[in-house]
Amino acid sequence: MTKWVYAFGDGSADGSADMKNLLGGKGANLAEMSNLGLPVPPGFTISTEVCTHYYDNSKSYPGDLETQVGDALGKIESALGRTFGSVDKPLLVSVRSGGRASMPGMMDTVLNLGLNDETVESLATESGDARFAYDSYRRFITMYSDVVLGVDHGEFEEILDNYKVDRGYRLDTELSADDWKQLVPMYKERVKDVLGEDFPQDCQAQLWGAIGAVFNSWMNPRAETYRRLHDIPASWGTAVNVQAMVFGNMGDDCATGVCFSRNPATGENAFYGEYLINAQGEDVVAGIRTPQNLTKAEREAAKGELPSMEEAMPETFAELCDIREKLERHYKDMQDMEFTIQQNRLWMLQTRSGKRTARAALKIACDMVDEGLIAQAEGVMRVDPMQIDQLLHPMLDPDADKEVVGRGLPASPGAATGAVVFTAEDAEAWKADGKAVILVRTETSPEDIGGMHAAEGILTTRGGMTSHAAVVARGMGRPCVSGAGELRVDAISKTLSCMERTYKEGDIITLDGTTGQIMHGAVDMILPELTGDFGKLMEWVDTFRTMGVRANAETPLDAETAKKFGAEGIGLSRTEHMFFDPERIVHMREMIMSSTEEQRRKAVDKLLPYQREDFETLFRIMEGRPITIRLLDPPLNEFLPHSEEELQEVADAAGVTLKDIKIRKNQLDEANPMLGHRGCRLGITYPEVYEMQARAIFEAAVNVGKDGVKAVPEVMIPLVGMKSELDMMADVVNTTADAVKKETGADFEYMVGTMIELPRACLMAEEIAETAEFFSFGTNDLTQTTYGFSRDDAAPFLDVYHRKGVMEGDPFMTIDVDGVGELVKIGIERGKKARPDIKLGICGEHGGDPASVHFCHQIGLTYVSCSPYRVPIARLAAAQAALAEKG
Amino acid sequence: MTKWVYAFGDGSADGSADMKNLLGGKGANLAEMSNLGLPVPPGFTISTEVCTHYYDNSKSYPGDLETQVGDALGKIESALGRTFGSVDKPLLVSVRSGGRASMPGMMDTVLNLGLNDETVESLATESGDARFAYDSYRRFITMYSDVVLGVDHGEFEEILDNYKVDRGYRLDTELSADDWKQLVPMYKERVKDVLGEDFPQDCQAQLWGAIGAVFNSWMNPRAETYRRLHDIPASWGTAVNVQAMVFGNMGDDCATGVCFSRNPATGENAFYGEYLINAQGEDVVAGIRTPQNLTKAEREAAKGELPSMEEAMPETFAELCDIREKLERHYKDMQDMEFTIQQNRLWMLQTRSGKRTARAALKIACDMVDEGLIAQAEGVMRVDPMQIDQLLHPMLDPDADKEVVGRGLPASPGAATGAVVFTAEDAEAWKADGKAVILVRTETSPEDIGGMHAAEGILTTRGGMTSHAAVVARGMGRPCVSGAGELRVDAISKTLSCMERTYKEGDIITLDGTTGQIMHGAVDMILPELTGDFGKLMEWVDTFRTMGVRANAETPLDAETAKKFGAEGIGLSRTEHMFFDPERIVHMREMIMSSTEEQRRKAVDKLLPYQREDFETLFRIMEGRPITIRLLDPPLNEFLPHSEEELQEVADAAGVTLKDIKIRKNQLDEANPMLGHRGCRLGITYPEVYEMQARAIFEAAVNVGKDGVKAVPEVMIPLVGMKSELDMMADVVNTTADAVKKETGADFEYMVGTMIELPRACLMAEEIAETAEFFSFGTNDLTQTTYGFSRDDAAPFLDVYHRKGVMEGDPFMTIDVDGVGELVKIGIERGKKARPDIKLGICGEHGGDPASVHFCHQIGLTYVSCSPYRVPIARLAAAQAALAEKG
Repeated sequence: MTKWVYAFGDGSADGSADMKNLLGGKGANLAEMSNLGLPVPPGFTISTEVCTHYYDNSKSYPGDLETQVGDALGKIESALGRTFGSVDKPLLVSVRSGGRASMPGMMDTVLNLGLNDETVESLATESGDARFAYDSYRRFITMYSDVVLGVDHGEFEEILDNYKVDRGYRLDTELSADDWKQLVPMYKERVKDVLGEDFPQDCQAQLWGAIGAVFNSWMNPRAETYRRLHDIPASWGTAVNVQAMVFGNMGDDCATGVCFSRNPATGENAFYGEYLINAQGEDVVAGIRTPQNLTKAEREAAKGELPSMEEAMPETFAELCDIREKLERHYKDMQDMEFTIQQNRLWMLQTRSGKRTARAALKIACDMVDEGLIAQAEGVMRVDPMQIDQLLHPMLDPDADKEVVGRGLPASPGAATGAVVFTAEDAEAWKADGKAVILVRTETSPEDIGGMHAAEGILTTRGGMTSHAAVVARGMGRPCVSGAGELRVDAISKTLSCMERTYKEGDIITLDGTTGQIMHGAVDMILPELTGDFGKLMEWVDTFRTMGVRANAETPLDAETAKKFGAEGIGLSRTEHMFFDPERIVHMREMIMSSTEEQRRKAVDKLLPYQREDFETLFRIMEGRPITIRLLDPPLNEFLPHSEEELQEVADAAGVTLKDIKIRKNQLDEANPMLGHRGCRLGITYPEVYEMQARAIFEAAVNVGKDGVKAVPEVMIPLVGMKSELDMMADVVNTTADAVKKETGADFEYMVGTMIELPRACLMAEEIAETAEFFSFGTNDLTQTTYGFSRDDAAPFLDVYHRKGVMEGDPFMTIDVDGVGELVKIGIERGKKARPDIKLGICGEHGGDPASVHFCHQIGLTYVSCSPYRVPIARLAAAQAALAEKG
Repeated sequence: MTKWVYAFGDGSADGSADMKNLLGGKGANLAEMSNLGLPVPPGFTISTEVCTHYYDNSKSYPGDLETQVGDALGKIESALGRTFGSVDKPLLVSVRSGGRASMPGMMDTVLNLGLNDETVESLATESGDARFAYDSYRRFITMYSDVVLGVDHGEFEEILDNYKVDRGYRLDTELSADDWKQLVPMYKERVKDVLGEDFPQDCQAQLWGAIGAVFNSWMNPRAETYRRLHDIPASWGTAVNVQAMVFGNMGDDCATGVCFSRNPATGENAFYGEYLINAQGEDVVAGIRTPQNLTKAEREAAKGELPSMEEAMPETFAELCDIREKLERHYKDMQDMEFTIQQNRLWMLQTRSGKRTARAALKIACDMVDEGLIAQAEGVMRVDPMQIDQLLHPMLDPDADKEVVGRGLPASPGAATGAVVFTAEDAEAWKADGKAVILVRTETSPEDIGGMHAAEGILTTRGGMTSHAAVVARGMGRPCVSGAGELRVDAISKTLSCMERTYKEGDIITLDGTTGQIMHGAVDMILPELTGDFGKLMEWVDTFRTMGVRANAETPLDAETAKKFGAEGIGLSRTEHMFFDPERIVHMREMIMSSTEEQRRKAVDKLLPYQREDFETLFRIMEGRPITIRLLDPPLNEFLPHSEEELQEVADAAGVTLKDIKIRKNQLDEANPMLGHRGCRLGITYPEVYEMQARAIFEAAVNVGKDGVKAVPEVMIPLVGMKSELDMMADVVNTTADAVKKETGADFEYMVGTMIELPRACLMAEEIAETAEFFSFGTNDLTQTTYGFSRDDAAPFLDVYHRKGVMEGDPFMTIDVDGVGELVKIGIERGKKARPDIKLGICGEHGGDPASVHFCHQIGLTYVSCSPYRVPIARLAAAQAALAEKG
């Protein structure tokens, strides 16, 4: 018999922390906390296998699930001496989702389950607080109706608002027990109106309804969006946690809170958190009330007026501090914990590895190594390579003039400038138009995730450091200022009012998520310092890493940045990118549009000095590091003139008529430029172009050589599918090299290799490697041809694919290991047959994607090459891959 | 020591017929003829390995070649009692190319080599004919200068023309021995003027110059074009044959001729040929003089006035008849022989398997089987599948009205209608514009090959049945009328004059290459009879064949044709081709351009009845044969409206504004439609379209079922790259099938499978086959993505690739075994892992290409599918593949 249900609580558990895949993160940690003897409300976890079974079997449960749930419920009942659905000491439970990976706010939760017209009376009697009991009941009706039955919570808010207006109440706190008691039948009536059915009074029906709702929510659009953005496969499924309720809202000896064993924003080794007296946990997380500080130090630093937990509940706080110690020592990582205090008794509801900013991740990793808690290798493994991206981007220039127009909580570090927009949809639409935007909301909700991703930064006027906006923004690496209460957002008129100023949609503001400041207009930014913890970690990284990291760069600025970020060379220098300068593009066009070799040679000769100078500059910057130079590659249409004016300009430069040029343009237009006349096809049809480029490279090498600078060019022929193509082009390069050597009397080293970016090139790699001294896998193009979709055109249908669950992730971001990856492996294996010491690199976008870097390490590439800003990410990912391999 | 040189003649030889790869076809057959004891002028063959060595080593020869050539030359000298370069009985030789495959007229030849100012005198004395000797010398100077030294033969024609004008001569025959003697120094002077060097008098220098010219001609553009058109790899190289000269032009007891052991046009078992008295062999082949018949019967049939060889030289003719018998019995195939009679002595210069028309090939194969000369299997192997194409195309309707405006030789059978053009370049240009043309020339030369290929038919006013035009046209399967002497061609004014009419460029005429008639305008055509020899052979074919053959068809006409040609089913029915009808395309466009599912459903519903009717018709025609129906596949842009009018029409049909439609069109435009929103991507984004198509298929199956017609639909999902795509679409199909079964209460069989046309699909074939019940390899698209070039855009650069020798053949015509082929093999292997009995087909253009059909047989496909007219070709090729496998 399959075990579907795992009990926990009461100092022991069926599961443990290493059963995350089966029990979800939350369930596994509840089990682990129970095993550690911590005070966990008893409960049980329905495993993720049930979710898989549910979706594999037309949403039905395994046959023996009901029995197992009944048994587990019985254990809770005996542990607490309560009975589910009984009027005598009724057991109330929460029902929560909990997947393998944390998905904050994405899954639905039901609290206070087990309340009905009878048990609510028992709760009132037992707690001695009828107001609490009926408030809980109406909360339960609202939440259950919304989440399980699909009745919008607005229905109940309307009833409540009318009720308050009729009686002249302003705040919920003004309502008495009697008021709530009167409201309950009105709520139930509304459910019946909407659904044509009574609100369920049977607690078992409530329970199974809630369990079904959790499983169903796994496939809701919000969850799907989150998974898409975080590359979580739909196949993982979610677990369901059913746990005895404990109440933080039974009076002033009750509280609820969220705390971190270290500061998740700065990484400082200081207990950090927020709590609310007489509140449910959801109140803290949802950001509806602004919570109080956990520690006295925090309260003082924040100039808070309400007492910290350390001051208000010193004994329980001490107990919590012990637990913090215990959990951090146990997990050897910073913990994010949720707790509730019911009538002065502390209950731990959850612990998990805490989300943190990149800065915090770095500091915590370095500190824990220094503290001897973890080894250097473990420290390196602790930092998410994707996350350190935020450390590598510009921040506010401290010397810049700035007009601060408001202030909020420093919820997610980094600075951002953009146009104000007021809805997630607008953020996505403006972003799609290429505009940088700041998403401004009263508070964010899971529906806003797409817009938050599209925005450069997020500003909310409500919510704390652990509000939805703050948590999600930190995860995404977006700067965020939350709880900026002095600002006013009017989403209808689309205005943001500060003390002195009012911003309309499209007006520019700047946020600093590190300080919480909101500034008028754009503010100057600077590059971050790459020393301190960052420098320390990157030093460790390089001791573990075995694969090289290069950058894709052609401009001097890119090359300088790459060098600064630790690139060991340039893995892809796209010569055509050097031609977009207005001074040059006319000659480029003249070259493309020549109909005779003679015309073409004339144009090409004009480009030679520019190219030579470009390469000299690169050689000087890279100081002897290898540079892979790709000869002219792109579909020519990328360079074609469009306007009448541009066409005339080219006609003049080439000395032909406008009509000639127009005819030529028509000849050059292609149905599918991506599969057209490009890459080495250009070199074969117009050898004089590659000859000029080779000459520019070699003359530049000779010139810098005179100043003692060593040039190490690796000349790369693009888009080769047949050995004969490479042979002919290698001939052109070698002949040119010989000519330059003879003309100048100087010697220089170089290599000739090819880009492997077509399926056929992978299959023919053995033959091709007879000529190629190196391979650089161009996985962008290889992805296009392997899947048969063009990056320019795929977005509309890939979007549908993601929504319909046909595809997870983006193969242009993370390499498709099964398809493209296999071709790369075939290419490597066959290439090595012909040339065992062949140099192997990758230069697609994948070179800067951590998961892809892992793959590149596994298959034995010599190096990856990525955009300059991604170099540290690739270095870290490469180190993690090497460490993972060691085990 | 490598043997580079192989001697022959004198009743024995170093080589034999099975050494074709080494000695070339001509060399191997000369050796074989010598071994058979036939009268072959002695000589030697320099092997093809020397050619390879020559190109692999910067055009230099193996070190010991010179010695081996010297030895072999010595053998000729002793056999004939002559000495090369000696004034005493000088030996003259011919130097000819000879590759593995026959390349008529493509390679350069030098005759009379060994003549110089001294040996010419010996020749005059020995032959007693000074006119013959000096004519030979001036011919040699002309030919050698043209071919070896690069002096245009026009230079010498100019001298000759001036000389004749000065002396009032009209014909060459009016020139005396003295005239030729006077011309020789003038020719030599001209060589010196052009080259600055004397014409070589040293015979060894002449010999090595000619050998080098043969090797160099292997890479000349004419040879490259021929190889490209005939898929001959450049790596094969050519051999060089050096052979003692024999003279057909030493007087009236001399002759030269070409003969076939059976009639190469009809296949009739009758000796057939042409000869010229007192002429060199080149005179026959070049078509400069119209030759005489070989046999009396032929002369009588042709109403010729000049005596046949049978009549003029009965003894030698009898000897030739014996040789004909001997050679045909030896080779068991129809032979094409060249001979020369020198002073009544017969010399065999060449024998080879004779080129023949498809009709002749069929008849000869069937006759030889009947005669017991070869087995049925051998008969099947004897017919070139590519060639029978000409039998399957329309011919003149015998009942059609026609105005015959001229008559020529029936040089290559079949009929053709087209616009008159006068140059090969024009033929290619008009063809590129999609026009059918008839190439009209006085005579053709190897430079015209591209234009002959582009033309529907060829008409020449000079030359016989073995002229260049006739031989090449037969090989290409182009109808040809040659030697139509009563017509006049003026290539300058571009006119063709018949007795009553004059045609300008672009005027339409019709040729019948089977009768030699030239007709005014277009003439009605009919389909050929597929009975007789054709039917007999195809019966044998089907007994040997193990692989199925289906057709690609969607119209009733195509399906009928396919059935008639023996297709065992439809392998590809492209549903979108059913939508180009004007009545339907507007709804198709409406569907494509809908922005909402509701709009789309409306349009789709309008298409349903059409589709259902289409399928009913197909099911009825195919009578229970399986039909693979591919759901909507093409890039949508193929259906987009373009003109304002079309756009308005769609807007009206969809009930939206013109502006809406224009916006939608912009949204749908793609950068690379081939890699865009097409194939199953359409089905996934617009499932209602596939649902409609599935419904149409199944409802049609139910409807025809009521009439007792069995429908066997195989529903094919196109462009699948991921199993999840197929799963989702298979669900749509299966759900629809269930619905139709339920609605109608009828049952029907069907399969769901996929097209494997992306590299990723090949790699993922095991997974995909879990769902797919069949695979059909779409090798058109697979070729595009494997090579990364689009069929629409590749022509310009592939043309350069062919010219520069980067690539041989066309991977869209014949499958690229190394690249695309490997992916297909991977797909098969993996697909079978998941589903050992999976049905495997191919439906790209390759399904009708014999070489590709061989490959498909080897890798174990269940069937190939090709265009209806190619079905017999595929059947034959499949039988040959099965026979080849048996060995």
